[in-house]
Amino acid sequence: MIRLYLAEDLAAGAAVAPSPEQAHYLVNVMRLAAGDELLVFNGRDGEWRAKMGAVGKRICRLEIAAQTRPQATGPDLDLVVALVKRARLETIVEKAAELGARRVRLVVTERTNAERTRVDRLAAIAAEAAEQTGRLEVPAIEPPAKLAALLAAWPADRPLMFCDEAGAAPPALTALAGRAGGPWAVLIGPEGGFSPGERAAIRGLPAAVPVSLGPRILRADTAAIAALTLWQAALGDLRGA
Amino acid sequence: MIRLYLAEDLAAGAAVAPSPEQAHYLVNVMRLAAGDELLVFNGRDGEWRAKMGAVGKRICRLEIAAQTRPQATGPDLDLVVALVKRARLETIVEKAAELGARRVRLVVTERTNAERTRVDRLAAIAAEAAEQTGRLEVPAIEPPAKLAALLAAWPADRPLMFCDEAGAAPPALTALAGRAGGPWAVLIGPEGGFSPGERAAIRGLPAAVPVSLGPRILRADTAAIAALTLWQAALGDLRGA
Repeated sequence: MIRLYLAEDLAAGAAVAPSPEQAHYLVNVMRLAAGDELLVFNGRDGEWRAKMGAVGKRICRLEIAAQTRPQATGPDLDLVVALVKRARLETIVEKAAELGARRVRLVVTERTNAERTRVDRLAAIAAEAAEQTGRLEVPAIEPPAKLAALLAAWPADRPLMFCDEAGAAPPALTALAGRAGGPWAVLIGPEGGFSPGERAAIRGLPAAVPVSLGPRILRADTAAIAALTLWQAALGDLRGA
Repeated sequence: MIRLYLAEDLAAGAAVAPSPEQAHYLVNVMRLAAGDELLVFNGRDGEWRAKMGAVGKRICRLEIAAQTRPQATGPDLDLVVALVKRARLETIVEKAAELGARRVRLVVTERTNAERTRVDRLAAIAAEAAEQTGRLEVPAIEPPAKLAALLAAWPADRPLMFCDEAGAAPPALTALAGRAGGPWAVLIGPEGGFSPGERAAIRGLPAAVPVSLGPRILRADTAAIAALTLWQAALGDLRGA
């Protein structure tokens, strides 16, 4: 069944209007008609069964029926990732949504080529991935910040899993074993790696937890997916109930 | 430094000719000149430092100098993956190479749309990823086989990590804990999942080890990367030395 992320409040009996793009998708792409059902969520009110109301050429209304799942939040896990090339960054955002990251923070490093990206486009990718993966929140995408500023303001109570391909570090599962699952973040560098000065600054953070992702050189997207998977398996909701 | 996968035998003092595509890449794309150095491997003789010899417009020779790493083989890990759409299948092959799979076996299932794929193109992607990731072998790509035939011939001594999104299964790390790291395979289904009959047939294999990849629905490429990562972290070379 189609799942749609909406901005509006959801409650039994409410009538809500999807965005023009969503209406186009429902009416013209998926060809839903009045009476057809779908699922909707907004990140606050849980998931609801909705019914297509009156359908126009490019607009439609949705009648909110019954709640199917109460709101729940996943682990408090941020992905901090250097700006990499567009296609790989989009993959990373899609996969971060599938793997349950709560927030994606973009970061500019010395070896980052770009300083800008289309945050709105990444947010749309995150929303679409959240719709498909079945989760009840959409990860927020934070606009690019400089690495130095990010480190200077790093909160002491949020451990930072630092995937350090240049230095000696214990295997990820070893480094994470026995840790608590509270607020955490995963840090992934650019394709060229962090500079020596950046590495020293990161390792100097009391919250830093350096880990190894194995003997091979991983592309940034592979490293991000592997690191999020290992964190979720060690401390998050891939551990099982 | 550039790393190149070659078919020919490698030994100190040998002179070898890269393929026309590789020569074009070295000469015209990367603009290497006579005397420039690169690394080469063939999956049998380890990794060698090589020097560009005579350079023509579209051809070049490589002079093999000294061995930099002896041949080593990674874990005996197959990825068995349903044919999915081309872009995601190419991602899966690239990531399987980065994550140390030794072989990718393509499989046709009831809910697989395609029955064919360009195996030669996937093999080229695997070789390029192996070059970049620093490993000494290129994963073999096996042409598509029917799932029923694959299961009928499944060897009893190769456990099959079955990522079952439809049924109850223990978390992957729980299911893998305490197992030996010998021959293994990871099985990833098509985007629509396996049919009920296929699931029963897989679970009926004595070698099947059903696992869960968590509470969210993962796309096939995400599931493949997550499963290979968790296997390597539990039983393979992401465990550390």
